Amino acid sequence: MPSVEVCYSPALYPLFHDTNKVVVVADILRATSAIVTAIFHGAEKIIPVQSIAEAMEWKKKGFLAAAERDGLVAEGFELGNSPFGYMKPEIEGSTIVLTTTNGTQAIMAASGCAGIYAGSFLNLNVLSEHLIHIKKDVLILCAGWKNKFNLEDTLFAGALAKKLIEKGGYLTHCDSAIASVYLYRMAEHNMVNFLEVSSHRNRLRHLNLERDVEYCLTENICPVVVKYVDGALCRWDENRN
Amino acid sequence: MPSVEVCYSPALYPLFHDTNKVVVVADILRATSAIVTAIFHGAEKIIPVQSIAEAMEWKKKGFLAAAERDGLVAEGFELGNSPFGYMKPEIEGSTIVLTTTNGTQAIMAASGCAGIYAGSFLNLNVLSEHLIHIKKDVLILCAGWKNKFNLEDTLFAGALAKKLIEKGGYLTHCDSAIASVYLYRMAEHNMVNFLEVSSHRNRLRHLNLERDVEYCLTENICPVVVKYVDGALCRWDENRN
Repeated sequence: MPSVEVCYSPALYPLFHDTNKVVVVADILRATSAIVTAIFHGAEKIIPVQSIAEAMEWKKKGFLAAAERDGLVAEGFELGNSPFGYMKPEIEGSTIVLTTTNGTQAIMAASGCAGIYAGSFLNLNVLSEHLIHIKKDVLILCAGWKNKFNLEDTLFAGALAKKLIEKGGYLTHCDSAIASVYLYRMAEHNMVNFLEVSSHRNRLRHLNLERDVEYCLTENICPVVVKYVDGALCRWDENRN
Repeated sequence: MPSVEVCYSPALYPLFHDTNKVVVVADILRATSAIVTAIFHGAEKIIPVQSIAEAMEWKKKGFLAAAERDGLVAEGFELGNSPFGYMKPEIEGSTIVLTTTNGTQAIMAASGCAGIYAGSFLNLNVLSEHLIHIKKDVLILCAGWKNKFNLEDTLFAGALAKKLIEKGGYLTHCDSAIASVYLYRMAEHNMVNFLEVSSHRNRLRHLNLERDVEYCLTENICPVVVKYVDGALCRWDENRN
């Protein structure tokens, strides 16, 4: 049976790296939630880049470019990582270049594994079904906040690990996967409330992003599998290997 | 009010380092539990060293030397990190040199902070009372397993953070402290059972160390404060700053 593990920080990723594993990157508030939203709303692909300067170069070439740092839209950009920015008509068919504080960095960190997916509550079921279909060992990589553990990515990791274990018969000997499932079980019936005390949620509250938080914690409203292929995140047929 | 934070891996310690914080190192199964046991049973000091070779050099000089790797007593040594090895009459008044897979490495990692303590369930109350007395910001550093998160150190971190918050009015904005408290609350009435599924507990079970596990999860049976001073861990007056 395949196994599922959880890594709480991109800084710890080298301890888990294996070319046979697929990696699900989770940056729930808000990068991977925004990415899944954009693909669901018809974006053709999203190119993650590490620096603001790189995103700006693409923008000058005429691409839709998005940049977030510390929860805010970076100077010189119109799009950040609020999912609501990715529901507009101009998103359809677009190529978007994106850099964020944590999420895009985590995607880059995982390069060299057997496949990278964007994970979020928005596409939880379809993603878990796809993973169960391809039967590979899964590592859920929490983007965290500046390499520190965060609660919302952990709850998502718990939700996904629980599905893989209960519906796909996945095994785990990974204490961070076990802890994540415990925390998700505790929180699942009222995640907004559970996260009330968390540091990043408070950070977003100060920015008046309550609406973003509630949206990002809603399960299964963007049922698309999003995979990183040839340097870009794009829609992936859930029945394909 | 002082704050409490939790760091889940020595590899993440640089993100938390601050010369004004005191650090409580926790390697529940079994290094810090063994250290607290030894001091409670009258050992004068314990010198943590990083390598087996270094421990062997001290041993040749006539010191009591202990070495553990991967849960076993290292070749050439009589003492590992089973707490039961530290209750014997020859412990009284001794200086012990100790190297372990995770615990002693974590103690070395934290050098340069405002004070390093050995944390365990065995001395939970007296340690929390001492910390509340000295009123400094506290970082609980989980030794983990080869830099990965583990459940038993996290439960201890939760137990200590809960005491500091509830009895000392400590604040936290640290998601790993919040998660640790949630997990401890879930586990506190039956920790042995809760850890049934954890990876390191299984590792110890294979080594027939059930008795060590039950001992290490028992609260307040070695009421001593153990502090790292001038390169060695020793008994510290709980009322002293």
